Amino acid sequence: MGTLLPSARMRERGIRLPEPASPVGAYTQVKVHGDLVFVTGQLAFVDGDIVHPGLLGRELTAAEGAEAARVAAINAVAAAAHEVGDPDHLDGVVQAVGYLACSQDFADLSFVMNGASEVLVEIFGESGVHTRSTVGVGVLPLSSPVEIQVTFARSV
Amino acid sequence: MGTLLPSARMRERGIRLPEPASPVGAYTQVKVHGDLVFVTGQLAFVDGDIVHPGLLGRELTAAEGAEAARVAAINAVAAAAHEVGDPDHLDGVVQAVGYLACSQDFADLSFVMNGASEVLVEIFGESGVHTRSTVGVGVLPLSSPVEIQVTFARSV
Amino acid sequence: MGTLLPSARMRERGIRLPEPASPVGAYTQVKVHGDLVFVTGQLAFVDGDIVHPGLLGRELTAAEGAEAARVAAINAVAAAAHEVGDPDHLDGVVQAVGYLACSQDFADLSFVMNGASEVLVEIFGESGVHTRSTVGVGVLPLSSPVEIQVTFARSV
Repeated sequence: MGTLLPSARMRERGIRLPEPASPVGAYTQVKVHGDLVFVTGQLAFVDGDIVHPGLLGRELTAAEGAEAARVAAINAVAAAAHEVGDPDHLDGVVQAVGYLACSQDFADLSFVMNGASEVLVEIFGESGVHTRSTVGVGVLPLSSPVEIQVTFARSV
Repeated sequence: MGTLLPSARMRERGIRLPEPASPVGAYTQVKVHGDLVFVTGQLAFVDGDIVHPGLLGRELTAAEGAEAARVAAINAVAAAAHEVGDPDHLDGVVQAVGYLACSQDFADLSFVMNGASEVLVEIFGESGVHTRSTVGVGVLPLSSPVEIQVTFARSV
Repeated sequence: MGTLLPSARMRERGIRLPEPASPVGAYTQVKVHGDLVFVTGQLAFVDGDIVHPGLLGRELTAAEGAEAARVAAINAVAAAAHEVGDPDHLDGVVQAVGYLACSQDFADLSFVMNGASEVLVEIFGESGVHTRSTVGVGVLPLSSPVEIQVTFARSV
């Protein structure tokens, strides 16, 4: 049995990490501090475009939001893996904060955020289980429906 | 004189820690990393129900919000204490982020968040004094009026 | 050539750190934990008043927001520097979370947050480059248009 490495888990599930997006301002995607890997809040970018731009509960369904959250979480893994050189140098997920752009009557926040949480566990297994906060906000950069801020642990 | 332990302070003040809530998704309530204890954003649950569900400044008063913030902060202490085995193994509070679901003209954000901050100091004394952010957002999971994300230090 | 210290960079650019604001509740401005320096979310205070109070996209322009973000970020540096005794004891910036109070159709979030990011890099140079999250929220304490929560590294 044994524990599969993240790279093997991703191969099994057909998850491919994209090239990390370039920051659009005076900041960086990843900062390693000790054995913590802080990652900039990731938007739902695929190939340079936001998937499902708009507001949850208005233009978008919860299912579209969950897909966007999955995309953003994968982008966070991609950024962190790129910085430490290899996803297998990451030692799991400490915390994820999910900001969801939605109408004030949107009720499916946890369902949307599960899109992020589940892919983190798919990739990292048990060590991918994390603490999280899920918050419904008014608007996010570039009309992304989600922004996912993930803090990883690093193998040292 | 001396410094009272959190368990003694809680006894004195009649604060009882509830059983930690079960996560409603692919995540966990607490993740210990080194001597930091990260806790999932806590909602204002009492016995499985949100106290004062709704929006501050619309259905709810600031006083109800402060009560909810106190409840959520106690839930954070309960989750962290459960994970490390004993509240006295916690070494104070590093940071609290308070997300408050409110109307856009709600002005009593700091008053509401003080409900959380004050109970953390009641429980931990001087080491419970923490940094914090207070943010008025549109909506939170399960119509909770507050979500409080606390990071504790652990005795090592 | 060599690397300029933060104090020298600030002198060069005419950036002066204000006296840190007093907390308006049961919390503190700064908590040092190991070599991380956590700072309370800073509002756009200048001499005890919020610059440009109100909502971005409604009463305020993006340029006013960027100015407010710069002010709040400088306040974060001031608070951290006061706590560790000297800005030169800070070893750069790990993460900045920017909460921006705005109308739901406000599109210039990244531009506003750059006001914070750029001054952090002006002050700390390369080590001031940080990860960040930028979130458009409904309302912030005291009608501040921005709240900037910064985590610094400390020289040890």
